[in-house]
Amino acid sequence: MSDGRPVDMTADSWQEHPHNRWAYQHIDEVLRTVTIAHGATVLELFQGEPLEVDGLDDELEASSTDGLVVLRGREVVLERYLNGMTPGTPHLLQSVTKSMLSAVFSPFVAGGLIDVLAPVGAYVPELRASAFGDALVQHALDMTVAVAYDETYDDPDSDVNRHDRASGWKAPRPGDAGSIPEFLASLPTNGEHGRRWQYCSANTDVLAWVLENVTGRRFTDLWGDFWPRLGAEHDALMTVDADGFSLASGGGCVTLRDLARFGRLFLERGQGATGDQIVPEAWVDDIRWGVSPGVDYSGLPESMQAHGSYRDQFWRPGDDHGCFFGVGIYGQYVWVNPATDVVVAKLSSLPHADDTEAFETTRTLLDRLSTLSAG
Amino acid sequence: MSDGRPVDMTADSWQEHPHNRWAYQHIDEVLRTVTIAHGATVLELFQGEPLEVDGLDDELEASSTDGLVVLRGREVVLERYLNGMTPGTPHLLQSVTKSMLSAVFSPFVAGGLIDVLAPVGAYVPELRASAFGDALVQHALDMTVAVAYDETYDDPDSDVNRHDRASGWKAPRPGDAGSIPEFLASLPTNGEHGRRWQYCSANTDVLAWVLENVTGRRFTDLWGDFWPRLGAEHDALMTVDADGFSLASGGGCVTLRDLARFGRLFLERGQGATGDQIVPEAWVDDIRWGVSPGVDYSGLPESMQAHGSYRDQFWRPGDDHGCFFGVGIYGQYVWVNPATDVVVAKLSSLPHADDTEAFETTRTLLDRLSTLSAG
Repeated sequence: MSDGRPVDMTADSWQEHPHNRWAYQHIDEVLRTVTIAHGATVLELFQGEPLEVDGLDDELEASSTDGLVVLRGREVVLERYLNGMTPGTPHLLQSVTKSMLSAVFSPFVAGGLIDVLAPVGAYVPELRASAFGDALVQHALDMTVAVAYDETYDDPDSDVNRHDRASGWKAPRPGDAGSIPEFLASLPTNGEHGRRWQYCSANTDVLAWVLENVTGRRFTDLWGDFWPRLGAEHDALMTVDADGFSLASGGGCVTLRDLARFGRLFLERGQGATGDQIVPEAWVDDIRWGVSPGVDYSGLPESMQAHGSYRDQFWRPGDDHGCFFGVGIYGQYVWVNPATDVVVAKLSSLPHADDTEAFETTRTLLDRLSTLSAG
Repeated sequence: MSDGRPVDMTADSWQEHPHNRWAYQHIDEVLRTVTIAHGATVLELFQGEPLEVDGLDDELEASSTDGLVVLRGREVVLERYLNGMTPGTPHLLQSVTKSMLSAVFSPFVAGGLIDVLAPVGAYVPELRASAFGDALVQHALDMTVAVAYDETYDDPDSDVNRHDRASGWKAPRPGDAGSIPEFLASLPTNGEHGRRWQYCSANTDVLAWVLENVTGRRFTDLWGDFWPRLGAEHDALMTVDADGFSLASGGGCVTLRDLARFGRLFLERGQGATGDQIVPEAWVDDIRWGVSPGVDYSGLPESMQAHGSYRDQFWRPGDDHGCFFGVGIYGQYVWVNPATDVVVAKLSSLPHADDTEAFETTRTLLDRLSTLSAG
């Protein structure tokens, strides 16, 4: 039966093209989700002078866009919805969720509950025997933990597939970990921490576990404190495993404008719609300027290797504008340009998870939009 | 981590006590769900003269009640929320969902799209080799299909457990059916149809399949047409398997007042809040008076065997008031008393799935409330 849902979509195929074109806008029907309620105060956005961009519609079609919005200050200067998406549709963020965790995590560092220079094992005893036990919290934040994690997508025994299955994102197989924490605890180390940037989603789920242990609360409840203070207009969703543990590395779903509001938060120096300092100013500065000396960034996309870096769950191209961004597979982006005071959010359902050409094309587009719109 | 969610709750334990006390009010966090949107027109209910019932609060506590409401006409004369439930909480209906299917199903019979005297196999070729192939649609509606279905709850290989796992209600095991339809097609017959009443949830899921095949639409979309016309105040939820197929036999979740509005529909002779005839009058009459001669009802609870029967996914005690009701395991009820014009809805999270003593106690209470409130 259809009504939009692809008839041949399975528990294993929803994440991929073409099923992702429908699934990313209907995650609650595909996975277990926790709803994160918005509050009474909405960060108001205003209609700005519309930005004209030649050939934009073709570019958006070609990059399987579901939604694109450009915010200059608090003015919406460009906004497009495609592929059935609406202003009220929560769309899967994939790894842009990691940047969301960064914000939710930050006040507990400033408040002293978490020391980023303490080992993860001090907060999560269950991880002591894993790669994460003696890695510092900052290593996990910056993706410099030396963890053996096999990303081969077409091997069912690879870690990335075991991770997906432990999270409920794919149908389980005999011998699988029954939960995300059980999976994380099974990952061994492969070297010395803090030396080499190695993008690995497990780091973010480890950070969620740290957060849950020090607060005694679920990650979704902590996000639930954050969301109304940000001034989100719509409820968010978070996918959870069979035990209710969040997939903080990729399971968030928000509307397009709420994603732009999230980007805006950093240009407001961490101050939310209710006037509260919800992300400490020191954390905003650390995302922009924080440095881990001596890290080998040869694992970054080639175009970013000369100047690029990664900090506190954000990517930094190292450009003249001091941009930083969150990115998720299949084309999810929140792009923040501090020089022009512009945020660009793009949600998509691309044919390939991680395609260098598509990444470069989109990065160029977002950079251009964030610069153009200043004029 | 808690915030209410039981820390030791698993994919296999949520349905049972004590985890059901939390889980039945948070089904979207436990299972995949489709949201069924309410509409603009709400069936208005009025505050009536409150009904005083001695000892009621103790009875409600003792029967693990989450919510109870009594409607006399459109007047709310009694309303209680316990165990954290609120007027906006969708609560799992378990098999009261079956009666919901009856209403959604009915117009397609009246409209001629479905002949209740045709064999199921005529509508669902995939079921031809199963018990259901040559069973009539009316047999499935009345639970008189002769189907071999083992209800042993503590045997993982029993049909009821295989059914739960195919539905995503329990963690899958090797060799399981991957979807509800695949499971249904595997059930063989055990005799002659139409002879013996044998309560079996598979019948209702078969009816949902019939409905999807003749309409070319998903069950949740058909419910989605029905819900705003009923005048529901809140969204409903339906749990779905890995392929998005609804568990029409038990996966519905609605708020307490919306369940009462559903019961009210039959006292309005099938006319919804928008004035449309959403359940044909002939169907309302058939639920009340329809008879399948010669059916052996020895499978009914003892107290109902003398006068009781089952029709069109509703239970009938055969009492002087012409009552009929929907019932679900762990204590879910919608009770309709045509003589007193009263509806009673009760949602619970009992310690045992199906306990004769609890059933008799609650049935007596609901009957009493539906009679008392007339005075």
